Amino acid sequence: MRSITIDVAIIGGGPGGTEAAQWAARKGLSVAVISNSPPGGRAFWSSLLPSKIWLHTAHRWEQIRHAPFDGITIPRQFNASTMPERISRTSQQQSEQLWETLQQLGIQWINGTATLTAPGEISVEGENQAPLRVQARAVIIASGSLPRFTPDIRPDMERIIAPRLMTRLRTLPRTLIMIGGGVTGTEYATVFAELGVNVTVVTDQPQLLPRLDPEVSHAVEDYFRTAKGIHIRTNTPVKAVKRNGDAVTVTLANNETLTAEMAFIAIGRVVDLKFATSEILNLLAPSGTVVELHNGMATALDGVYAIGDVTGGPMMVNRARWQARMAVEQIAGQVKHPEPAALTEAVFTHPPVARIHHPVRAATGEPCERYSLNFQGNLAARLHDMPAGKLVLSVSKKDGQILEASAFGPHAPEIIGVIQLAINHGISWSELRRIPLPHPTAAEILTAAG
Amino acid sequence: MRSITIDVAIIGGGPGGTEAAQWAARKGLSVAVISNSPPGGRAFWSSLLPSKIWLHTAHRWEQIRHAPFDGITIPRQFNASTMPERISRTSQQQSEQLWETLQQLGIQWINGTATLTAPGEISVEGENQAPLRVQARAVIIASGSLPRFTPDIRPDMERIIAPRLMTRLRTLPRTLIMIGGGVTGTEYATVFAELGVNVTVVTDQPQLLPRLDPEVSHAVEDYFRTAKGIHIRTNTPVKAVKRNGDAVTVTLANNETLTAEMAFIAIGRVVDLKFATSEILNLLAPSGTVVELHNGMATALDGVYAIGDVTGGPMMVNRARWQARMAVEQIAGQVKHPEPAALTEAVFTHPPVARIHHPVRAATGEPCERYSLNFQGNLAARLHDMPAGKLVLSVSKKDGQILEASAFGPHAPEIIGVIQLAINHGISWSELRRIPLPHPTAAEILTAAG
Repeated sequence: MRSITIDVAIIGGGPGGTEAAQWAARKGLSVAVISNSPPGGRAFWSSLLPSKIWLHTAHRWEQIRHAPFDGITIPRQFNASTMPERISRTSQQQSEQLWETLQQLGIQWINGTATLTAPGEISVEGENQAPLRVQARAVIIASGSLPRFTPDIRPDMERIIAPRLMTRLRTLPRTLIMIGGGVTGTEYATVFAELGVNVTVVTDQPQLLPRLDPEVSHAVEDYFRTAKGIHIRTNTPVKAVKRNGDAVTVTLANNETLTAEMAFIAIGRVVDLKFATSEILNLLAPSGTVVELHNGMATALDGVYAIGDVTGGPMMVNRARWQARMAVEQIAGQVKHPEPAALTEAVFTHPPVARIHHPVRAATGEPCERYSLNFQGNLAARLHDMPAGKLVLSVSKKDGQILEASAFGPHAPEIIGVIQLAINHGISWSELRRIPLPHPTAAEILTAAG
Repeated sequence: MRSITIDVAIIGGGPGGTEAAQWAARKGLSVAVISNSPPGGRAFWSSLLPSKIWLHTAHRWEQIRHAPFDGITIPRQFNASTMPERISRTSQQQSEQLWETLQQLGIQWINGTATLTAPGEISVEGENQAPLRVQARAVIIASGSLPRFTPDIRPDMERIIAPRLMTRLRTLPRTLIMIGGGVTGTEYATVFAELGVNVTVVTDQPQLLPRLDPEVSHAVEDYFRTAKGIHIRTNTPVKAVKRNGDAVTVTLANNETLTAEMAFIAIGRVVDLKFATSEILNLLAPSGTVVELHNGMATALDGVYAIGDVTGGPMMVNRARWQARMAVEQIAGQVKHPEPAALTEAVFTHPPVARIHHPVRAATGEPCERYSLNFQGNLAARLHDMPAGKLVLSVSKKDGQILEASAFGPHAPEIIGVIQLAINHGISWSELRRIPLPHPTAAEILTAAG
């Protein structure tokens, strides 16, 4: 059997795995990435990136429809026929860019399916190639996640669809039922609605975006109902989805049925645990759901680290990248016990949504002052025809640290990004507010008088 | 003579003056604002706000022209006839919003022209009203600035225009010469170019936006030349501008002449020194150009403070607001010697530009590492069709503090806003970069690997 020996072997070529590879290579470690997809993984090729192109396209389409100019004519219906090419071109461009960076750093790319057979021992199987054994001082598992389906709620990839189909969808339905109101369900619900589809969101949760502050989530729901015409049914579990000729029937837990031309399943993601033998898996993921972390990114096995979605949620690229950096610093012996960081969770609707919490102190129940700010008077928000929206914060009464923040409005991810810096560096809310940000920006909501 | 006595009298109702008023009222001080325009002053009614509506409108127009959709038809020429109404409506909305806030805080608004006759003594003259004397424990001068003209370079407000005319311009020329390449000249050059006007910028400076890092300024020039078709002539002083029937002739210092249907004068701003008697003015502004500051916002006269454009440049709303807060804290005795702050300077072109510098250490010549980052691989920049652009930083070799930064690209003001927080709170460049910002955002350029 062919065999190579390397400092760090990484299972998974998505944003987390490739970040770890870059970080390790820059520290002088020899690195191999084992992946059964091109650089960027599922995020670039089937989930995150396609959704962002749909979101961007739908937003531009909506902006043109509502442009304050005379004499513009626009087709009644959005023509989706070129979307697959746009998406695959962008995936290609981003993947090639990443590939070049990896090549410049001398990172070895191994196409194939990895199986961790023992700590530091990986066997790789690929099409048309002899099996390969990779021996590594350290292994980083970054195998990611996949959409979750159930026996009664699963796609047929024609009328009952899932995120992956969005890379090849060329025709929009007139009506669509979105099953799930998390990040994916909410983002794609707005995409379809902005492109003229009659959308109903059905979620078993009490609100859209369950992790969001309820006040902000209700502002989001109100806006999406009134401005985008989306029907939203919360506290509404779905029992089954069935294809019915050219239609789809969704049966709710109360036996009520809904029909539409299409249904979209976005009921969550499960981690990809196909990276190891069952013996190894029993040690790394004894619950069978996620790889368990013990100290920082270290797992139960010496020399085996895990990062990104495979370690659980919230499943976000910036979390995976942060964990990647920490894993490499642990492997390099630079950090013994990584401290948790505050990381922005973003939803790229229009306007977008974001939240953050203090990684240690958010859920301890310490006494907080609650602030609810809005964009009234914010010129940037008015220019974007979006004076609605809000920023809600919980601030410790003890020392003024921001413990939680949720925002809905123009540039919400960037606004929460400023708060990310404040939380991670111990800058209090009053210190953060002290020095005005440039005018006119949406971020001025942070530093406005009052 | 009617007379009132108050804690703080503020001369000028623009962004700086009204910020000071709010700040003082929240501290329990009694406050009067004396202004000869409605709340918001020239910024809201004739300079800043109109420019931002033109910029936003031109950007939307350009986006529609370049939209990647089939079947859209758009008039060949932009119809500017409704711009005056759009601008005055937005000015009104923003001014009313501000008015309400001031009313809620019990701030007295005095319409009229103020003359500071002695420390703590202001006479106010208004139309159709008896003169009023305001006696105040502290006076804050926030009289702002006006466009600068010279005898040979001055507007006729028909063919030779200036920022104020943009509130009533209803017809665009086919060709325009922009005299000046500072913030106003650059912003409006892009507005006209995006709306289809053939624009030539003429500036006596060696680059557009003279305060910007030259590498970034050259990237801006290149992009505006190639993507927007703007002709840019640097190191080109103008001698005179003359109306010539339906055309305008611009004579350069080398006697070369340029002609166009319109010329726009943007050769800088002068401070408004009409707020005091000449005796007082000799003490406050001995050079005759700006009000001189001695400690923080204090002037040469006890109890008289000055903030905003009247104290010199860079003339920015966030600087005026920061100075307003400091002046009030000095008056309230909470701060004896305000420390200077780093403040973002932003230019709202598309994409925008921004810069910042360390308020104390930027120009000391201490050894620096220079970083030049770009948006390659940044998915948000690619979605905005703007993978060009860059972020250039000077970082102290001693302690890693960011001493200067210039950015050109999507969300540049927000990106530099994050650096503003870092500089003001002593967060080093390596600390700032440590924890990834949300994906996909333009701000990721700050925290990307590499």
